[in-house]
Amino acid sequence: MDKSCINVGILGWGTVGTGVSKILVNQNALIARNSGTQLCLKKIVKRTLPASRPGIELPTDCLTTSPADVVDNPDIDIVVELIGGISDARAFIRRAIQNGKHVVTANKALLAEHGVELFQLAAQHQVSLNFEASTAGGIPIIKTLQESFAANQIHSLYGIVNGTCNYILSEMHEHAVDFSAVLKAAQDKGYAEADPTLDVEGIDAAQKLILLIALAYQSNISLDQFHVEGITNITQKEIQYARELGYVIKLLAIAKLTDEHRVEARVHPTLLPERSLLANVGGAFNAVCVIGDAVGPTLFYGQGAGEMPTASAVVADIIDAAKSVQQGVSTPISQAWLADSQTEVAVCPIDDIDTRYYLRFVVVDRPGVLAKIGGILGNCEISIASVIQKEPHGTDTVSLVMLTHKAREKNMKTALAQIYTLEDVKGDAQLIRIEEEVAF
Amino acid sequence: MDKSCINVGILGWGTVGTGVSKILVNQNALIARNSGTQLCLKKIVKRTLPASRPGIELPTDCLTTSPADVVDNPDIDIVVELIGGISDARAFIRRAIQNGKHVVTANKALLAEHGVELFQLAAQHQVSLNFEASTAGGIPIIKTLQESFAANQIHSLYGIVNGTCNYILSEMHEHAVDFSAVLKAAQDKGYAEADPTLDVEGIDAAQKLILLIALAYQSNISLDQFHVEGITNITQKEIQYARELGYVIKLLAIAKLTDEHRVEARVHPTLLPERSLLANVGGAFNAVCVIGDAVGPTLFYGQGAGEMPTASAVVADIIDAAKSVQQGVSTPISQAWLADSQTEVAVCPIDDIDTRYYLRFVVVDRPGVLAKIGGILGNCEISIASVIQKEPHGTDTVSLVMLTHKAREKNMKTALAQIYTLEDVKGDAQLIRIEEEVAF
Repeated sequence: MDKSCINVGILGWGTVGTGVSKILVNQNALIARNSGTQLCLKKIVKRTLPASRPGIELPTDCLTTSPADVVDNPDIDIVVELIGGISDARAFIRRAIQNGKHVVTANKALLAEHGVELFQLAAQHQVSLNFEASTAGGIPIIKTLQESFAANQIHSLYGIVNGTCNYILSEMHEHAVDFSAVLKAAQDKGYAEADPTLDVEGIDAAQKLILLIALAYQSNISLDQFHVEGITNITQKEIQYARELGYVIKLLAIAKLTDEHRVEARVHPTLLPERSLLANVGGAFNAVCVIGDAVGPTLFYGQGAGEMPTASAVVADIIDAAKSVQQGVSTPISQAWLADSQTEVAVCPIDDIDTRYYLRFVVVDRPGVLAKIGGILGNCEISIASVIQKEPHGTDTVSLVMLTHKAREKNMKTALAQIYTLEDVKGDAQLIRIEEEVAF
Repeated sequence: MDKSCINVGILGWGTVGTGVSKILVNQNALIARNSGTQLCLKKIVKRTLPASRPGIELPTDCLTTSPADVVDNPDIDIVVELIGGISDARAFIRRAIQNGKHVVTANKALLAEHGVELFQLAAQHQVSLNFEASTAGGIPIIKTLQESFAANQIHSLYGIVNGTCNYILSEMHEHAVDFSAVLKAAQDKGYAEADPTLDVEGIDAAQKLILLIALAYQSNISLDQFHVEGITNITQKEIQYARELGYVIKLLAIAKLTDEHRVEARVHPTLLPERSLLANVGGAFNAVCVIGDAVGPTLFYGQGAGEMPTASAVVADIIDAAKSVQQGVSTPISQAWLADSQTEVAVCPIDDIDTRYYLRFVVVDRPGVLAKIGGILGNCEISIASVIQKEPHGTDTVSLVMLTHKAREKNMKTALAQIYTLEDVKGDAQLIRIEEEVAF
């Protein structure tokens, strides 16, 4: 099929949808020059029709309240799903695919949960289902894993993929303020949602990790299969001790191929050496490090959210889909979502990982506590690399901070259970894992 | 055309060719799993047949001394040119294209000089001419500019794209050694060529900049149209003063869209703020920052040379070409190399750029010198931002180091010509441009 103009319909005219419509309308000639593709924005579906928006003048009759005007419209070649959520988005994408339309989506939650169903449906109908904007916004990490690194066995992958968490941790690091104060300020500025749970509890990062693992390891995993831990327990004390020890705390989404054809998958706050590139990714920015057997260490940095950076990725996907329309082909779909692949690389349980740890115990300031804790750790094959204990300031308790050498997580759990029985140890320890493989 | 196996022929079995053959042979199943593409290495052309190589067992009859066994072989679908140089490489690529084969090359020198001819020939024969490995090795910057950022007007682009120069400057910064000593050590370790001219004089970086500009601005420029300056004049004094002022010196390839639809293109040593990501790209690594109007600031980091990182990019191109074979299509070619495009964005002469400068004058330690130099700069509309002058140590002359605010290069030349007529100023100044837009 050789069409002079490829027609695009958008579901949803929120932040990203507005950005996409701006690019499609205002940068039409630029896109044609850069890609040789003539795109035409035909329809935008918005539940309630809004007044006109600054920075964009839509074609006549472009806005509609009926999703059918996009998903069932024979004139539309490419459907762009930007309504978010699961149920409606899933139904519209299914209908668009069944109608033979190529689909572009930024919906990581939907793909993390229903990727198998939707990609198999796309394969069956020989259409593309592109999703660059679902992970790390403007950073082309999906295409990079799927195409540019296709000749690599991916050793490991480390992502700062949630801008809200990175903004909060960066502010805590730079300005010595507490989590709750920064979160409040971030909400006031629009950097964090009114309900920030999905972000600060690590769920959003975990959904993105599912997609990255699908591409890196052709493996389809689900949220309940791996360790997900947010940043709500990170206090200013942790930030300060980490800094004193030469580290910065970042929320990382981590995937690592272990020796036994298993992949570690985990999302948690992580200590990174302060001079590493990843530790210096500040503000609401995202970055993903990928280490491949051929390409070696790489890093990709950019804005992971926001109107225009996300729209940049969505329109790149639209352009790819437009080429598919013109050439009568579709974008290849990762084996992860096609049959039988999920058996190939299994998730390594968190108990089986080996990593270094930051530990902070609150202990009664009394002789012998360090020896008892050190003894338990030693018995569990956990070796201490460094210790900080400062003089108490008018309290009975002090913080005892330790960095360990590499240890098995299972052993750490055993040791902590024993340590918590000591009467001089007050409450649970702060435990933060350390990554040093990304120290470039 | 739907073929179960796509046949690949390689011209040249040097460092990169060996890496490509290793991946094609040893990672065949991985590539099939990652990309759904079955590649078959059929022929490798080597002028003189070598003994077998460690790490790779070639198929029977794979090695040949005759280029015709690849470029004229009807069984070969994709020709990979890795012999380097201009004349033979050009002839073989032309013949392969004319025989209807898709071509992959890592030859930046060839494309920088003969890109128009070769891409037009490829367009005419409807085959792909892929060149990811030509610039920044394993970093997928070609695909990113061509596809992922196709919806962006690129504001500017800053690349550390020569690993040899970055290695030398990093060593000079870390270990306080002089240029010639580091170059010698780099040659001994194989990080620098026996004749390092193309690297240390900035030519290699300039060739890569030509390709990046073609993709970012659809504009075809040539080496003689822009300012290219290497690192051979950078002394340990410059490194030290820069550090004292909070900067690191890197060789950058720079492109910037100016207001008047002109693009600045230049390669030169550059002062970067020491806390910026780009300033922290150490050793032989490469990195490219791209700032787009939609996507905002981005950075891509990785190994820019070497057997396996470069092979990773070459094989990614082979996989793309294989998809073209299977789908009967070809990779779109940048407008830069097709007709009439070079008029769209012209090169801005270096005299017209506005930038900040680092200047080091060697002056006689006598009252009034600073005033005279400052006066001349002021008359030429160049404002001084900071000055360092230290007490002399047993010599008649001292270094007078200045950072300026933004000034027009033309005015700087006028000022320097006048300053050089002062009898208290000995020899030419060290002049290094400063970039602060990449301070993320």
